[in-house]
Amino acid sequence: MRILLTGASGFVGQATLAALVKLGADVVAVSRTRPIVAGHYDWRKCDLLNSSATAALLHDCTPTTILHLAWTVEHGAFWTAPENLDWIAASLALARAAADCGMRRFIGTGTCYEYAWPEHAPCNESVTPIVPSLLYGISKDATRRVLEAFCATRGMDFAWARLFFLYGPGEHKARLVPSVASALAAGQPARCSSGQGIRDFIDVRDAGAALATLAVSPITGAVNIGSGEAVSIAEVALMLGRLAGRPDLIRMGALPNRPAEPRRIVADTTRLRDEVRFLPQRTLVEGLTDALVQWS
Amino acid sequence: MRILLTGASGFVGQATLAALVKLGADVVAVSRTRPIVAGHYDWRKCDLLNSSATAALLHDCTPTTILHLAWTVEHGAFWTAPENLDWIAASLALARAAADCGMRRFIGTGTCYEYAWPEHAPCNESVTPIVPSLLYGISKDATRRVLEAFCATRGMDFAWARLFFLYGPGEHKARLVPSVASALAAGQPARCSSGQGIRDFIDVRDAGAALATLAVSPITGAVNIGSGEAVSIAEVALMLGRLAGRPDLIRMGALPNRPAEPRRIVADTTRLRDEVRFLPQRTLVEGLTDALVQWS
Repeated sequence: MRILLTGASGFVGQATLAALVKLGADVVAVSRTRPIVAGHYDWRKCDLLNSSATAALLHDCTPTTILHLAWTVEHGAFWTAPENLDWIAASLALARAAADCGMRRFIGTGTCYEYAWPEHAPCNESVTPIVPSLLYGISKDATRRVLEAFCATRGMDFAWARLFFLYGPGEHKARLVPSVASALAAGQPARCSSGQGIRDFIDVRDAGAALATLAVSPITGAVNIGSGEAVSIAEVALMLGRLAGRPDLIRMGALPNRPAEPRRIVADTTRLRDEVRFLPQRTLVEGLTDALVQWS
Repeated sequence: MRILLTGASGFVGQATLAALVKLGADVVAVSRTRPIVAGHYDWRKCDLLNSSATAALLHDCTPTTILHLAWTVEHGAFWTAPENLDWIAASLALARAAADCGMRRFIGTGTCYEYAWPEHAPCNESVTPIVPSLLYGISKDATRRVLEAFCATRGMDFAWARLFFLYGPGEHKARLVPSVASALAAGQPARCSSGQGIRDFIDVRDAGAALATLAVSPITGAVNIGSGEAVSIAEVALMLGRLAGRPDLIRMGALPNRPAEPRRIVADTTRLRDEVRFLPQRTLVEGLTDALVQWS
């Protein structure tokens, strides 16, 4: 089994690449810039928005499996960016080239933002309605629908990983955990919204390991990648404050809440645990402790 | 208002082009081959699968509205053809280029094959569930989902025409009406399946006129393009036999039924009638009479 990993230099990509290397997989890492990940793997520079380059790459590497992470991820902008349309096209072109090369398995990556978010239950892959509301979620969902149907016409296995709330090494500094951890490290107040929303946080290293495990498994269909643990955004900030010994610096409610923030987004991780047979290795306290070290 | 019509040399495209010309619209007809339609319009040769060519075309023509018909339509093959993926990408690239040129209105074309087909009610745009089962319908539906969200981010009006069962001038000769009409004209038996399925047939000239009326209207969202009349496939064949004076040549049941043929696919045409304010001009008998002349 040779796995081609796209988006290999990204936040999730590097964690996934490290996990694949650790599993001893034969990996071709694809990205526009070189990943900073140790270990044995083949790196190929490729711009997947160029479909001829994509086809040539697959023809040259002859992987058996694709784990496709690449997408537009510009912080803040990606929710409604027109580049979402380009990445739909690039993802479809990648799958088509993969099928034409006789590839056996394609794993795409989606988001918890594809789901309706039930107020009183976790998001389940086969039960929770799919009602994405922003261009990003709609684009991911549309990509999943088409790839699932396309792979079926070619006898290719297809799986779709829905990522929940990731934090950890390589995270954009404007996001929750880095911004609070940096403020704490500088001895400055960490201004937060009221943070009443309930979320499912998972360390990106665990998410990467989950994706790697899914890639080498025979599991098909949608799979949530989360911790299964419900925690409020406020609790994450307060936990960082306590772990840093400066709970006094956490200023809940100092920032306005974003409009239309969903109340609760939590993963049902039954499939991930019982079918993919993956369990996260880090607790939230452990992950946040690492983050404080990283941003100090 | 300047309307750019894609797929202008196709079966639906030529009928739509003729209708737009009749409405006195300022039309730029786009296709790979020249349409055989009389009247005043501008024709531009363009391969929409080339996104740079598409962007250059829009920049050059500066239309205000796009009526996008182009798609892969190879008879029999299009249901599961990988080219569906290319046409998703081409449609998204077209919409993106349109938005970048400041266009105000985008009309895409889908299919009754996006719907679940209720056994006892017509397909309604806002009530009937969307559950396409083949790659073609899934690709059309995915395109609609993304374009609707994308147009919203750019303040562009978006409408989506769902076409039901078309017949008439320019139809592929292997389809129901031409194959039966040709056999009748040759005095040969017309071999048919049992034809128990109930369908909504509309003459392509009426469908083209409906699309043209939708394009120049301010209506947004999904709109069914059908006659609203439920008729069995068998009845269409028998009607052709009667109109040709050779009912004896219609051999119902001589061909096997296709597997998994839906029982009933009929349009609720309330939106088309009351909001777009369009009524088909031809009865089925009139359209089939014309078809018999055409194929004699």
